[in-house]
Amino acid sequence: MEAPPLLTELADYRPVQVLAEQLRATTVEDLFAQDPARATDFTLQAAGLRLDFSKHLLNREALAGLLRLADQAGLSAAIAALFDGEPINNTENRPALHMLLRASGSHGLDDKFTQVRDAREQMRQWSQRLNSGVQTGFSGAVITDVVNIGIGGSDLGPRLVSEALQPFRGDISCHYVANVDPADLQDTLLDLNPESTLFIVCSKSFRTEETLTNSLAARNWMLQAGAGQADLDRHFLAVTSNLQATAEFGIPAANCLPMWDWVGGRYSVWSAVGLSCAIAVGWENFQRFLAGAEAMDEHFHRSPPQASMPTLMSLLEVWYCNFFAAGNHVVLPYDQSLRRLPDFLQQLTMESNGKRVSRAGRPLPYTTAPVLWGSAGTMGQHSFHQLLHQGTELCPADFVLPLTTHTGMQEQHRRLVANGLAQSRTLMVGRSTDNARDALLQRGLDEAEAARLAPHLAMPGNRPNSVITMNAVDPATLGALLALYEHRTFCSAVLWGINPFDQWGVELGKEIGTQILARLSGEAAGGHMDPATERLMKEWRAAQG
Amino acid sequence: MEAPPLLTELADYRPVQVLAEQLRATTVEDLFAQDPARATDFTLQAAGLRLDFSKHLLNREALAGLLRLADQAGLSAAIAALFDGEPINNTENRPALHMLLRASGSHGLDDKFTQVRDAREQMRQWSQRLNSGVQTGFSGAVITDVVNIGIGGSDLGPRLVSEALQPFRGDISCHYVANVDPADLQDTLLDLNPESTLFIVCSKSFRTEETLTNSLAARNWMLQAGAGQADLDRHFLAVTSNLQATAEFGIPAANCLPMWDWVGGRYSVWSAVGLSCAIAVGWENFQRFLAGAEAMDEHFHRSPPQASMPTLMSLLEVWYCNFFAAGNHVVLPYDQSLRRLPDFLQQLTMESNGKRVSRAGRPLPYTTAPVLWGSAGTMGQHSFHQLLHQGTELCPADFVLPLTTHTGMQEQHRRLVANGLAQSRTLMVGRSTDNARDALLQRGLDEAEAARLAPHLAMPGNRPNSVITMNAVDPATLGALLALYEHRTFCSAVLWGINPFDQWGVELGKEIGTQILARLSGEAAGGHMDPATERLMKEWRAAQG
Repeated sequence: MEAPPLLTELADYRPVQVLAEQLRATTVEDLFAQDPARATDFTLQAAGLRLDFSKHLLNREALAGLLRLADQAGLSAAIAALFDGEPINNTENRPALHMLLRASGSHGLDDKFTQVRDAREQMRQWSQRLNSGVQTGFSGAVITDVVNIGIGGSDLGPRLVSEALQPFRGDISCHYVANVDPADLQDTLLDLNPESTLFIVCSKSFRTEETLTNSLAARNWMLQAGAGQADLDRHFLAVTSNLQATAEFGIPAANCLPMWDWVGGRYSVWSAVGLSCAIAVGWENFQRFLAGAEAMDEHFHRSPPQASMPTLMSLLEVWYCNFFAAGNHVVLPYDQSLRRLPDFLQQLTMESNGKRVSRAGRPLPYTTAPVLWGSAGTMGQHSFHQLLHQGTELCPADFVLPLTTHTGMQEQHRRLVANGLAQSRTLMVGRSTDNARDALLQRGLDEAEAARLAPHLAMPGNRPNSVITMNAVDPATLGALLALYEHRTFCSAVLWGINPFDQWGVELGKEIGTQILARLSGEAAGGHMDPATERLMKEWRAAQG
Repeated sequence: MEAPPLLTELADYRPVQVLAEQLRATTVEDLFAQDPARATDFTLQAAGLRLDFSKHLLNREALAGLLRLADQAGLSAAIAALFDGEPINNTENRPALHMLLRASGSHGLDDKFTQVRDAREQMRQWSQRLNSGVQTGFSGAVITDVVNIGIGGSDLGPRLVSEALQPFRGDISCHYVANVDPADLQDTLLDLNPESTLFIVCSKSFRTEETLTNSLAARNWMLQAGAGQADLDRHFLAVTSNLQATAEFGIPAANCLPMWDWVGGRYSVWSAVGLSCAIAVGWENFQRFLAGAEAMDEHFHRSPPQASMPTLMSLLEVWYCNFFAAGNHVVLPYDQSLRRLPDFLQQLTMESNGKRVSRAGRPLPYTTAPVLWGSAGTMGQHSFHQLLHQGTELCPADFVLPLTTHTGMQEQHRRLVANGLAQSRTLMVGRSTDNARDALLQRGLDEAEAARLAPHLAMPGNRPNSVITMNAVDPATLGALLALYEHRTFCSAVLWGINPFDQWGVELGKEIGTQILARLSGEAAGGHMDPATERLMKEWRAAQG
């Protein structure tokens, strides 16, 4: 994978550009008229998920062109390298083995798989311990609440999973604290009793500023409530690779679960980082979550490119970013339990592919990851959908639409589904000015007023979107869904020629943060800053009163 | 305001384009070197807020050019028309009078101001009734929990305000239900007792699908718990203009607070739509919230354009959207209590300005509202900041940075401030490849490896951002902050030549939603859809088992 040509250097780049140019002059409705079979042919199934990509500004010819680009970018070899455990994270000389975390077999990586199995066994035991009420706090009270302290990958994944699997939850309540803003921890602890609370501290280095700061505050809270230093092992677990730091903190090795450098934070919910989820939904359900992801791995590993759901979704991403200049991608889960999906996907896609140099360090002459955003439907319909329908930005959309509800309220849920399908269709068909004028005349407006208002009601349509359906949100389909987006992210990285597994861009901010903190704390060591930062620090000082 | 020239037709459009072209070849650090006074001169103060816009790719000449554009677009006249109550919502022939909702005087609109004052008195009484424990439910138990049922403007504003003012809250807990997904209401009611719960139903028409559906489900819950039809007046308030529908629902007129057609949903948190907030934080604090907004109104109404904070922020929006092709804008509140600010601003900006025709119905030859997104700092630093620093998308940013905390944990809060200032500075200064290589050599890497990795650590910098500070998040500064963004949105609409107060683009989706719901419910009346929607409906039917 070391130095393949860049996207714009691929043989089919220019031909695909020409196809995009041609399609720009047509509409998706025209494409349906020419080829009605696309409604069934432009769909894929995998691991309990179904993808409908028929409402895209894409025909069979353009799709074939994109698949040729994927071939020329070496996608198949890259997928093989990923699954074979090659050091594809080339700037850190590491493999990316998140698939092993959900694998049922070792795939030839016996040593690492043994570690994974041991960690799973630890997770199983802690999950069962807590769910069976055996774990007690310093006063002898049974633990009823678990607080996960972590940030980024140690927060967004577990938070999403335990919210999405709310109907599968047992008696233990799980809470999540991430922000260094002390209000985050303070608000969370407000309703909790130290005697029955257990913290899980997730930090590979055990040095992450936010996580360490919050953990120290949590320990204070516990000690002030009457726990002794020796009781901390009843109230603190850690997921980390720094056993020295945890020992100094007061967490014994028996309470520590591992993290490995061959798993990036944003790919780690399948590891012990997911412990809070395994506690929340029980070990059986957590295993189903892993199995759903493994099924998607198998699909991705074994399918030819044209039948691979992650590959197809990645080709659509590249299609709009690089051939239609789309700078964003909107994800719309029509399910309240999946409301954090956009937050999770922001990290996954933007931290992975928000890069500007190739794997070999060459500046890229094209755009990479778009801004990913979104919210739960139908909330967005009463907020930003106005822009999706009538704005000037191209916003390719993914609708994520579970077809049944766990609530038992079928009739109300039907409204949710109807809204999701309606938005997807409306984005495609739009409304002509003539149609808008007729509608206004039917409402009783006179000719002049109808003519005046019609342009405001008209909608261009032709706004591309995918629909991802599943029978229900359950542990298996959720696992498959997250793995789907992981692999989609990987494919896009291959097409863009970048390494999705590092994040060097966040280093400098941390360094400068340390310098500014020193300055705010009155230490000269922080060094002199630019005039604006100097002025803002002065302003901060004045506000301390 | 009827038919001014479009942005691209203004006399100074081309000259400003030339200035943008020149600035593209420079850096913000160069601009600081040439003009260090910009650190103080490129700042503004208003209503307890301070704006630092010195870290933008903008010099005095370009700023003057933008101000000329604002002048040529008729901004001053538009502001006067807004405050004078002229029917500037030209497609609906209405004024936009949200400022009157927070005004301490009538501004010549005596009739409407009387209605506002009467509504305020109703709010005051309900707030005091609930906070003094006088309001009891059907069993005689005191009401302890209030559930706001509303969506869009009837949800995002109140939800943001009551979360942001958490430290000011009294004994009543406020909850928010919006989504038609039955899980939203069900999850919320899980921990509540019908005997001590009061619902506030917010819907101007009392016909909003989500709100009506959830209200009916809430009424069922109440009746099933033992309340009689005659007890509903103890458990339901409504904010609406449809008193007939509320009477049919079982809410007497005495429990109804008004909404008016001269206030758009996304501008309505200042009205009775904010009742849940007035209950949560008490009437005194809600008045301070209104007063903070009024102070910003005064500033906006009376300041010359170059001294007006909303105007300046709007000019920056137009600058990046229309002269630098930015398609998004990121808002980063460095305060956990403001974590919903981006959600609120999404509706405010994207529903207001996600338009593609002028006020006169002419298609626009330029882009309007960008995608607005963001999350609370420092969360985003461990998620999408990688893309902000090293991605290929231009993401102009607003940092919102309160300088003190209500938690009492000063030292931890200092870390939050340091991180915010550091991110703002880092986006500007970046890191050269040489500097990155030196840093790697200092870490002990050999020459070859340092040279190989340096391009991955290098960051272009020069990424524009504003810093909005306030001494603390309190009712007054929060009111000022929301009013600031409201007026910024208005100014951008004026520059783009659009009407920010309608939302015709959401109509068609509702119509098609009704048709699809009919089809899913087995009624043929829904009509035939496109092949993709037909196939998806079949898939839904199959999943119902």
